[in-house]
Amino acid sequence: MALRAALRGKSGLAGLLSCSSHGRLCPSSSSISQRNNSSSAKLIVDHDQTTGVAVMHMQSPPVNSLSLDFLTEICITLEKLEMDKGCRGLIITSNQPKVFSAGLDILEMYGKSPERCGEFWKAVQEMWLKLYGSNMVTIAAINGSSPAGGCLMSITCDYRIMADNPRYSIGLNETMLGIVAPFWFKETMVNTVGHRNTEMSLELGLLYKPAEALKIGLVDQLVPEDQVLSAATQTMTKWLAIPEHARQITKSMMRKPTIEKLCSNREADIQNFVSFITKESIQKSLRMYMEMLKQKKA
Amino acid sequence: MALRAALRGKSGLAGLLSCSSHGRLCPSSSSISQRNNSSSAKLIVDHDQTTGVAVMHMQSPPVNSLSLDFLTEICITLEKLEMDKGCRGLIITSNQPKVFSAGLDILEMYGKSPERCGEFWKAVQEMWLKLYGSNMVTIAAINGSSPAGGCLMSITCDYRIMADNPRYSIGLNETMLGIVAPFWFKETMVNTVGHRNTEMSLELGLLYKPAEALKIGLVDQLVPEDQVLSAATQTMTKWLAIPEHARQITKSMMRKPTIEKLCSNREADIQNFVSFITKESIQKSLRMYMEMLKQKKA
Amino acid sequence: MALRAALRGKSGLAGLLSCSSHGRLCPSSSSISQRNNSSSAKLIVDHDQTTGVAVMHMQSPPVNSLSLDFLTEICITLEKLEMDKGCRGLIITSNQPKVFSAGLDILEMYGKSPERCGEFWKAVQEMWLKLYGSNMVTIAAINGSSPAGGCLMSITCDYRIMADNPRYSIGLNETMLGIVAPFWFKETMVNTVGHRNTEMSLELGLLYKPAEALKIGLVDQLVPEDQVLSAATQTMTKWLAIPEHARQITKSMMRKPTIEKLCSNREADIQNFVSFITKESIQKSLRMYMEMLKQKKA
Repeated sequence: MALRAALRGKSGLAGLLSCSSHGRLCPSSSSISQRNNSSSAKLIVDHDQTTGVAVMHMQSPPVNSLSLDFLTEICITLEKLEMDKGCRGLIITSNQPKVFSAGLDILEMYGKSPERCGEFWKAVQEMWLKLYGSNMVTIAAINGSSPAGGCLMSITCDYRIMADNPRYSIGLNETMLGIVAPFWFKETMVNTVGHRNTEMSLELGLLYKPAEALKIGLVDQLVPEDQVLSAATQTMTKWLAIPEHARQITKSMMRKPTIEKLCSNREADIQNFVSFITKESIQKSLRMYMEMLKQKKA
Repeated sequence: MALRAALRGKSGLAGLLSCSSHGRLCPSSSSISQRNNSSSAKLIVDHDQTTGVAVMHMQSPPVNSLSLDFLTEICITLEKLEMDKGCRGLIITSNQPKVFSAGLDILEMYGKSPERCGEFWKAVQEMWLKLYGSNMVTIAAINGSSPAGGCLMSITCDYRIMADNPRYSIGLNETMLGIVAPFWFKETMVNTVGHRNTEMSLELGLLYKPAEALKIGLVDQLVPEDQVLSAATQTMTKWLAIPEHARQITKSMMRKPTIEKLCSNREADIQNFVSFITKESIQKSLRMYMEMLKQKKA
Repeated sequence: MALRAALRGKSGLAGLLSCSSHGRLCPSSSSISQRNNSSSAKLIVDHDQTTGVAVMHMQSPPVNSLSLDFLTEICITLEKLEMDKGCRGLIITSNQPKVFSAGLDILEMYGKSPERCGEFWKAVQEMWLKLYGSNMVTIAAINGSSPAGGCLMSITCDYRIMADNPRYSIGLNETMLGIVAPFWFKETMVNTVGHRNTEMSLELGLLYKPAEALKIGLVDQLVPEDQVLSAATQTMTKWLAIPEHARQITKSMMRKPTIEKLCSNREADIQNFVSFITKESIQKSLRMYMEMLKQKKA
C-alpha cells in the first residue's frame, strides 16, 4: 500500500480520453519489487511465483493513455503471462494517481495516416482479445477514473473492484467525443450490464460514479481507496481455489460468441474504424475536444 | 400544463385494448398551439423550431386506440418529422384523459377480411419500424395508462417518463385477450427489461403499476402527473446536447439486429398474424373480450 | 402439510451433487394420496382432475439424485402428463427432507462405459427438453437444497418458489466438481438471471442462499418452509386463469431458440459430454469429490 500512497499526487485526470506526448517516455520513478520478474518503463509486473498471481501496474504518465506503444507493451506482457504456467491470476491496476486508465490515446487518432490508424486499432483489438479471452483469472483493481478504453479494460476482466471515491468515474463515454464504441466494446458491456443499460450508457456517453456503477453492475465491489489492491488479492485467492480447467472452459463458453464475432471480422472492423476516424468531421470533433481539454488544464 | 388539466375528464380507460368506432371522427376539442406547424384531427404536432423538438399529442377519442386510420396518420407524421432537418427530438404524449394509448384497436381485428387485417398489421409494423429506428431522440411522456400497443410505442422510445399515478398501468398484456405479442414486440421488451421479466410478463399478460414498471426498468422515471411533459422537455435538452452523429450510429448499432429481423420477415409476419387472428377461436376470444368491456362500461 | 412435516428428518444433504446406490431401490415410505392416479417407487404423482393440476413429489432416497433410472421415470411421467388433456399445470416438489434434488448422480459419471455415459446424458437432455418445452404451466416448489441438476430442473419451470431457510441453497455449481455445465444449462440460466450473473455463477460454481437467489432472480418468491406447496398451488391458480393457447404460444416463442439449439446438436452434445467425462483427469476429480463427500458424512 506504501507504493500507492506515495503515488497519490495532485495532478488531476486530464479528461475523459487523454493526450500524452509520444515517443520516448522517461518514467519519473521505477518501482522496484522484490518479486518483480518482468517490467518495462511503463509496466511494472509483480509476479508472485508462490501464489501464481501477477499484478500489472500501469505507469504511463500522466494518465495511462493507451497509445500504440503502450498497447504493444501491454499485449507483449499479457502474452508472456498467458504462456507462463506459473501465472494463474492477473490483477490490473494503476501506478498513476487518480486514474486507472484514461483510455485510448486521442493523439493516435488525430492527424495520423490511415495506415497508422489501422495499426493502432489492430493493437486495441489485440489487447481486448488477449484480456477477454484470457485463461487466467483477471481482476481489475480500479484505483482511479476509468473512462472509455479504461472501462473497456475493466469489463474484460472476470471481476472489478473500484475505489469508493466519488471523484472517480467509469464508463464507455466515447459518444461524448463524437466517436462511436465498436460492436465488441458494446457486446462486452451488454454481457456485463445488459442491453438497456448499455443502450442508454452508450447513446449518452455516460460516466458513472462508483456507487452508480455498482448499482448497474458495471463494477462488482467498492472498497476504500487504500484497500483496492488488497481486496483484489483476497478475491483472487477465492477464484484460484476453483477447479481451474472447469473454470476456464466455462469462461470460454460464456465469451466465445463475442470473441469469434470479432475474430471473423477483424479486417472489416479495422477498415470501418479507419474510414470513420479519418473523416474531416470526426477529425474536427477530436480537435475541438483536445482544445477543450487544454483549456480545462489551464 | 393547463391543456392537460383541462383534459383531465371523467371518462375512464375502457380497458386493456379498446374499441373505438371507425370512420370519420369528430374530435371534441381542437387544441391550438402558437407553434403548431403540423396537425390533423387526431394528432397535434407542436414543433418548436428553436429547440428542434416536436411534441406529438395523440387525441383520438376516447382512448387513442391505434386504428388503421390513426396508425397511418402517425406514420405520415413520423416520416415528415424524420425528414425535417429542423426536428431533432420527438416527445410523444396524449391529449386524452387518463390514457396514453389503449393500444391496437380490437375492431381492426374483429370480423375483418384477411386483406384488411393484413393492411392493419402492416401499419403496426410500419409504426414500430419508424419509431424504433428513428434518428431523432424519442421520449415517451406517458401521462396515462399504456397497455399493449401503447406500451409498445413507449418502449420503442429512447426514454420513458411516466405519471406517478397508481391508477395507471403499462405492459404488453396481449395474452390476456387470447392473442400473442409477435417476436418484434417481444424483442423490444427483452431489449428493455431483459429475458426473464419479458417471459413472465408476456406469459401472464402483466400490466405494471408505475412503481413496478420503474423497478423492472419498463419506464425510466416517474414524476407527478402534471410534470410529465416538462420533465420530458428537460430530459430532451440533455439528450440533444450529445454529439448527434455518434449518438445516432450508436442507437442504430443497438437496435439494428432487431429491426433487420422484422425487415427480412415482414411478409411472413403479416401472414402469420392474419392466419392467427382470423381463426374462429381467436375471433371468439375477441368477441368475449369486447362484451366484457361493454359490461365494464355499463 | 402433514406429509412434509413427517418427512422433515435429520439426514442432511449429502453434498452438492450426490451419490446414491443404484439398482433396485426400496423406498422407505410409500405416500398414499386419495387423488393419486399415477405413481412409482420414486415418484408420487398427485393429479387433481378438478383443478387440472398435478403435483410430482420426488422421493428417491436419500437426496433425489438424478440417476438414469430416476431420470427415465421422470421423463415417462412428464410425457404422460403432457399428453393428458386433463392436466394443465405441474408442480414439482420433493418428499425427501431438506433437499429438492441434489442433481445429477455422480455414480452415473464415474467408472462407467462411454455407452452408459451417453445413455445417461441423453436422459438428462430428454428431461430438460420435456420440462423447458412443456405446454403445461410448471412451478418448482423448492422445499430444500437444489444444487446443479436440481437447480436446472427448477429453472426450466415457469415459476420458482423456495423455502426461506438459509440452510438451503441453489445454483449450478458444476464447476466446483471440476465438471462443466453444458451450453443449454448455461442458456437456461442466462434466460433466467442474465449474462453477467450466469458468468460469475458458473465460473465460481456458486450456490446461493434463498435470499441471494431471490435478489438475482434465480427464484421468484420465498415463503416459510411449510407453505411452499400451498404457495405453489395458489400461484398455479393464477397462471391457469390466463388464456391457455396464447400463453403456450408465448412460452414457446421465448424458449424456442434455446430448445432448437439443443435439438439440432443433441448427438454432438452427447459426444462432447462422453469424451469429457471419461477423461482420466475428470474421473480423478470425481473420485476426489466422492471421497470428500464420504468424509463429510463420517
